[in-house]
Amino acid sequence: VSQNRRIVLAARPIGLPKESDFRLETVPIPEPADGEVLVRTLYLSLDPYMRVRMSEGRSYASPIALGEVMIGGAVGEVERSRDRRFAPGDLVEGRVGWQEFGAVPGGSLRPVDCGLGPISTALGVLGMTGLTAYFGLLEIGRPRPGDTVVVTAAAGAVGSIAGQIARLAGCRTVGIAGGADKARSLRDRFGFDHALDYKAADDLAGAIAAAAPHGVDVFFDNVGGVIADAVMDNLARGARIVVCGTVSQTSLARPEFGPRAQAKLMAAWASMQAFNVYQFRDRHEEARARLAAWLRSGQIQHREDIVDGLDRAPRAFTGMLRGENSGKLLVRVAARKAAP
Amino acid sequence: VSQNRRIVLAARPIGLPKESDFRLETVPIPEPADGEVLVRTLYLSLDPYMRVRMSEGRSYASPIALGEVMIGGAVGEVERSRDRRFAPGDLVEGRVGWQEFGAVPGGSLRPVDCGLGPISTALGVLGMTGLTAYFGLLEIGRPRPGDTVVVTAAAGAVGSIAGQIARLAGCRTVGIAGGADKARSLRDRFGFDHALDYKAADDLAGAIAAAAPHGVDVFFDNVGGVIADAVMDNLARGARIVVCGTVSQTSLARPEFGPRAQAKLMAAWASMQAFNVYQFRDRHEEARARLAAWLRSGQIQHREDIVDGLDRAPRAFTGMLRGENSGKLLVRVAARKAAP
Repeated sequence: VSQNRRIVLAARPIGLPKESDFRLETVPIPEPADGEVLVRTLYLSLDPYMRVRMSEGRSYASPIALGEVMIGGAVGEVERSRDRRFAPGDLVEGRVGWQEFGAVPGGSLRPVDCGLGPISTALGVLGMTGLTAYFGLLEIGRPRPGDTVVVTAAAGAVGSIAGQIARLAGCRTVGIAGGADKARSLRDRFGFDHALDYKAADDLAGAIAAAAPHGVDVFFDNVGGVIADAVMDNLARGARIVVCGTVSQTSLARPEFGPRAQAKLMAAWASMQAFNVYQFRDRHEEARARLAAWLRSGQIQHREDIVDGLDRAPRAFTGMLRGENSGKLLVRVAARKAAP
Repeated sequence: VSQNRRIVLAARPIGLPKESDFRLETVPIPEPADGEVLVRTLYLSLDPYMRVRMSEGRSYASPIALGEVMIGGAVGEVERSRDRRFAPGDLVEGRVGWQEFGAVPGGSLRPVDCGLGPISTALGVLGMTGLTAYFGLLEIGRPRPGDTVVVTAAAGAVGSIAGQIARLAGCRTVGIAGGADKARSLRDRFGFDHALDYKAADDLAGAIAAAAPHGVDVFFDNVGGVIADAVMDNLARGARIVVCGTVSQTSLARPEFGPRAQAKLMAAWASMQAFNVYQFRDRHEEARARLAAWLRSGQIQHREDIVDGLDRAPRAFTGMLRGENSGKLLVRVAARKAAP
């Protein structure tokens, strides 16, 4: 192999991305510069935040330029290294992007400890996904035993972990997801106390009130929009809203208007807080070790939805934004070389 | 005098209250029951929260019943006491309501220390108004020296105090108010570094960006609506939004829709929090002493807007909701009796 296949941003999507917003290119494999490491991608993580970066406009991070490789976290094998901390064959995780080979600064890579779990988990439950659930729920949500915790996109990669950590923290958990299959998996697989299928609910706010008769103490929100509005009509006094994502808005040409949050917060003396997992960078390893222990002991279940082949990434990504997958969405880009 | 004049809720207003939503009644002076104190009102406080309590619907407190006396804080003189902690002639503050005489539980009254300031300040800068500004800004906003703090309704009772406390905390302060006179008072009287007249701004978000070039670290919001939206387009990373009031929405038949907060919070890893001054009840005296010291030393200026006569309360209240007053709005209901 001497060619690198990669997927670049071809056009800025309006609302839900189309496959023509992406372009598959074949280019030479890059040469790592001094301090860089050439990584061969094994798994690529697909996450809703990528949609935000495809658009211009103010955000927490700058947009991907047209023609630039789509950003994304990956686990891979070191192919060549010009950083002495890494050697060929090492397993690493980092922001390699949607491509088969990437030359990235060694300082941006994290060695993957295969002892913690299968290597794909370095992107999911033991990666940014699990850390987002962990810090969002525990640090922003601050659950207390007996609290009622509502999670949206609860069958998704982050939501399913957040709900299980809430249960481990002694909370009553209510998961909201779209469709009967997902709702069933919330109870059967992820151990939520209550599961609500928002697509089947005529009166979602009423259904939440029935599932949370004393109000919602912690709301871990991945979706925003009308579903979040309905949860916010049921806040308990002192409720904490964890703003993790707004995936309901990403498939729209522009965000919908809705009721503003202020009156809902005032009625409950509540708070609403966005965060970024990198705010807690110095505690990532501590959290990863804890997640790994829960995974090993079976106290946390995780689901991976694995698509084969880099060329399938755009379609899988768009499907995720439409809610078609369940669990952590990964692209298997290449197999691991036989261990030496 | 053996008659008590009082103002009751005659009809539930839609949007801005009309004078016909109130009714002035003359009834016998109530007899205090055991444990109660009969208070003769001297000053009545008029505050935006009262509008919320005039409507049915979920809020942080139950609505005033039709025909019931309008709720409100007052300072007054003890007329008769069946609580041994109070004796005739004592000055007290409590929720006497819109009436000349009220029989209230002794446990709900606070003795007023005349040494701290003029008795009207027990309702304003040294009362719930000042405490709301103090705890909202310092505990919810958590300002650091050098932060940029934006305050809306900044010439109002709470906003003017919040802005001055922010300046004492070493912050750059930007006040937003409606009208040239108020904007001038923000700089000249209350010491804001920048003053914006939202009625004169074609591009309010742009004007805020110019006044806060490094973004808004703390947003102390009394108004909500489109003004709050414009501030929230200028949040600095880690910004704290203090949701103190939504007075822009009270004169509407129903709250407007607008952009939801989630995306704005996510773009800045920001938080938004409502609160109630009673959450900090055990620290009220500490805060009151500090406010009194600032007032005495001239480090805090306050403005009172005093209307004479209980019968003028409905019109003054409606004017306040329309933004017609500046500073703390009080009704002088009666003069103090000559000291014995």
